[in-house]
Amino acid sequence: MLSKAVVKYIKSLQVKKYRNQHQAFVVEGAKSVLELLHSGFKLQHLFVTEAFLREHTAILGKGYAYEVVKEEELVKAGTFASNNAALAVASMRQLPPLQLSPQELAIALDDIRDPGNLGTIIRIADWYGINKVVCSETCADFYNPKVISSTMGSFTRVNVYYLGLPDWLQQHTAKYNIYGAALSGENLHRMQLKPEGIVVLGNEANGIRPEVAAQVNQLVKIPAFGGAESLNVATATAIIIDNFKRNS
Amino acid sequence: MLSKAVVKYIKSLQVKKYRNQHQAFVVEGAKSVLELLHSGFKLQHLFVTEAFLREHTAILGKGYAYEVVKEEELVKAGTFASNNAALAVASMRQLPPLQLSPQELAIALDDIRDPGNLGTIIRIADWYGINKVVCSETCADFYNPKVISSTMGSFTRVNVYYLGLPDWLQQHTAKYNIYGAALSGENLHRMQLKPEGIVVLGNEANGIRPEVAAQVNQLVKIPAFGGAESLNVATATAIIIDNFKRNS
Repeated sequence: MLSKAVVKYIKSLQVKKYRNQHQAFVVEGAKSVLELLHSGFKLQHLFVTEAFLREHTAILGKGYAYEVVKEEELVKAGTFASNNAALAVASMRQLPPLQLSPQELAIALDDIRDPGNLGTIIRIADWYGINKVVCSETCADFYNPKVISSTMGSFTRVNVYYLGLPDWLQQHTAKYNIYGAALSGENLHRMQLKPEGIVVLGNEANGIRPEVAAQVNQLVKIPAFGGAESLNVATATAIIIDNFKRNS
Repeated sequence: MLSKAVVKYIKSLQVKKYRNQHQAFVVEGAKSVLELLHSGFKLQHLFVTEAFLREHTAILGKGYAYEVVKEEELVKAGTFASNNAALAVASMRQLPPLQLSPQELAIALDDIRDPGNLGTIIRIADWYGINKVVCSETCADFYNPKVISSTMGSFTRVNVYYLGLPDWLQQHTAKYNIYGAALSGENLHRMQLKPEGIVVLGNEANGIRPEVAAQVNQLVKIPAFGGAESLNVATATAIIIDNFKRNS
């Protein structure tokens, strides 16, 4: 059974301040917890249901300390409306220094505040083999439970950095193509794109901030054929990255 | 002020049974309500805040009956966590008969139950000028408030049909290419695609049902470059449709 103290601890990790204080975060659901077990993240707690244990005895038998609890307990402690599988608390990890190789495609996010969008973008990055996402400090927090769950396990493979975006981009303008998504950009379908450089996506309502746009050397747009005025930022990221990767 | 009876009526429209009984649905937020006012949907109720009224006197002055209410009242009646703009109740409309023209690209959805995904797909369809989305009867309901809000106004331009998908596709196999998204499909990046035919997307967990897959004559896949096992179905729809439209 989950003790009151543990439930309180897990609940506290919904708040960034306490995540940072404890250097820990919560992972929920079968897919995400399985990916966590296969990753290098260090576990603090692992709670599983009987059903999850039966289905995954092989991996759980590899020396993980776990506790069997009821579905209702997972729901009570976590953020999911239902969870018949597992919940883990893991320690944050130290990222390797942010260094781009010359033939690398990276994603930069300016003020993406919606956790679901950030998580979906991390999943898209992972699908396309991109392992660096560089965020302005105003983006949603990587360790937010909603970000983690939206990545569907990709949080274990993509490194997400937080920094002052204008300065960081300025350090890269000489050596890298910096692309920015904007409705005034060049039609992506008519460009010959190599999967190298940095692609910047901005806030859905406000676009890329001027101080970030100043570092962009090529604006690109997804051509519109119908009446919608915009696309969701995660959708736009997917389409743009796909256009970059089609020639690799 | 919103009367108790009106709040109760609006709340009842969160449930499909009552939406169908009253042939009405709820539209929330500035963008969606403005698109509603510019569309052919008939209004039953329109509630606006002072701020929204000041900003949109031109359109509201065109003879709409509206009532000015407080932000808290909109939140109380609707589904949004915050709404400083407007909420409307509109009558459902009769769709034109479903008829594909020979040079047309349509989207078919098999068992897409998540309202946010359905809404996002409708928005993507609208962006790419696709105005027919054909749904299996198990898909989320078009008039679900979460679907409507996720479309960001595109619900006014895209016609969404519900029917028995296997039979409908069977009637079209002779004249149309029917594409299905599947991990075992042909690499989209290596195909010469014309924006014509029907693109079928299946349930994220289970894929396209066998009886639907039986009607597909070309499976396609988005090539994977990294570790993610799958993409969100709305993300996948966007990438696939973009690949179809790049040669138009």
